[in-house]
Amino acid sequence: MAISSSNPLSSPAQTPSPGDSYVQSFARGLQVIRSFSAESPRQTLTEVAGRSELTRAGARRILLTLQSLGYVETDGKLFTLTPRILDLGFAYLSSMPIWNLAEPIMEALVDEVKESCSAAVLEGTDIIYVLRVPTHKIMSISLGVGSRLPAYCTSLGRVLLAGLPDDEVLSRLQASDRKALTRHTMTDVNELLAKVQATRKQGWSLVNQELEEGLVSLAAPVTNREGRTVAALNISGQANRTSAKIMQDSMLPALLAAAKTISKLLAVKRA
Amino acid sequence: MAISSSNPLSSPAQTPSPGDSYVQSFARGLQVIRSFSAESPRQTLTEVAGRSELTRAGARRILLTLQSLGYVETDGKLFTLTPRILDLGFAYLSSMPIWNLAEPIMEALVDEVKESCSAAVLEGTDIIYVLRVPTHKIMSISLGVGSRLPAYCTSLGRVLLAGLPDDEVLSRLQASDRKALTRHTMTDVNELLAKVQATRKQGWSLVNQELEEGLVSLAAPVTNREGRTVAALNISGQANRTSAKIMQDSMLPALLAAAKTISKLLAVKRA
Repeated sequence: MAISSSNPLSSPAQTPSPGDSYVQSFARGLQVIRSFSAESPRQTLTEVAGRSELTRAGARRILLTLQSLGYVETDGKLFTLTPRILDLGFAYLSSMPIWNLAEPIMEALVDEVKESCSAAVLEGTDIIYVLRVPTHKIMSISLGVGSRLPAYCTSLGRVLLAGLPDDEVLSRLQASDRKALTRHTMTDVNELLAKVQATRKQGWSLVNQELEEGLVSLAAPVTNREGRTVAALNISGQANRTSAKIMQDSMLPALLAAAKTISKLLAVKRA
Repeated sequence: MAISSSNPLSSPAQTPSPGDSYVQSFARGLQVIRSFSAESPRQTLTEVAGRSELTRAGARRILLTLQSLGYVETDGKLFTLTPRILDLGFAYLSSMPIWNLAEPIMEALVDEVKESCSAAVLEGTDIIYVLRVPTHKIMSISLGVGSRLPAYCTSLGRVLLAGLPDDEVLSRLQASDRKALTRHTMTDVNELLAKVQATRKQGWSLVNQELEEGLVSLAAPVTNREGRTVAALNISGQANRTSAKIMQDSMLPALLAAAKTISKLLAVKRA
């Protein structure tokens, strides 16, 4: 057995490094959790091993560990995640007071503008959705909490990038996988940097069909007491229903007001 | 150093047991993640150690591991979770095709009945919310994805328990922390078992102010191709606005129809 039976957690602390075996095993455990997706909701041991880049023996050990902790179930052949997994993400969501504050304000905004509203934060070169209030329209865009999208081509992403210093913006843009997702997508780093700088100056971002044909989106920053951007709020709609111009003229004031209200509440709550 | 430098994952697989040191270290890592909450969004090392029942050295090792993997941030003194944590819970949600199928149907239901609709699954003695479509009312109940509530006193819980065999229902009811949360809450195991059996027979559950004064809730099961209950759907409202009788008379047919539609789609998709 490769792990000694003495308790590693009661030994003197050492600074873990990415090459450290404890860090590696923990990372692999999380990697196994992440190998489950819409495309692979039920996996055999071999599939988990393949997707997590582990040996079968290693994957089996982690799966059985996750099973003994109640995070994975199996019928003996196929493995699935259990809802207990949600406790992990919930620890993050519930630790951010902003989302409780933001929700009623976002709901009022959706009522007013009749378009979906989402809140997101920045993670590396991606935005991650943390809250979403859909309109009750068939065409409403389906992006659940935890979904990721690239920052460079989304209004939420440009507002969040605008909250960083220029050198940081530049390095994130350079690290982004900048693809022309539509014929409108801006992919040049210098153009994108100029766009982010303009976003910072005007205090909001409008992205017209750069992520997806037909999709228009308007975003504004949510700031904390120190004025630092901690999240972004957006409204998005269909270009054939709501043109970019209509969105800017008729919805921007409401979006900016909502973002400001949340920022003020946040300053009081010291988030 | 307690962990040997050879790679534990390439060693021959052994069945991990709860006392196994690898299982224990992994469990402790997840415990540290779960120690963050609305009450403790930012924690010092000492606080994390206390809440996770770890030594300071052990907590430090795990926090630095989580930091090196990008799941935790620190300013040197206080630790917080990063949004990357959502990738873990999101793996579960996106691995369940049901939620994509269910959402538009739940939105149509909310439009029809003008009350919030949620979907939940059973986890031990709790229900866990997996999807929620709020009404845009100030009074709408705020329970995000990943929230837990006890099964014994909720309509969702009773419907989910009704999907289990009686001996399993009994053992979960016995394991529940059955408190009289209001003057209406049923807490006796035998009465609850009879209630769950009645729920199974009639195919839905109405819970009138047993979880919270003023809260009425109606739930129906979502079943898979084999007829097994995999989730439950509910509508909930305020008793002063929508009495239990009105809810049953005017909303039950719509709720049952929505649950049936989702079940049918699920059977086709083989979930």
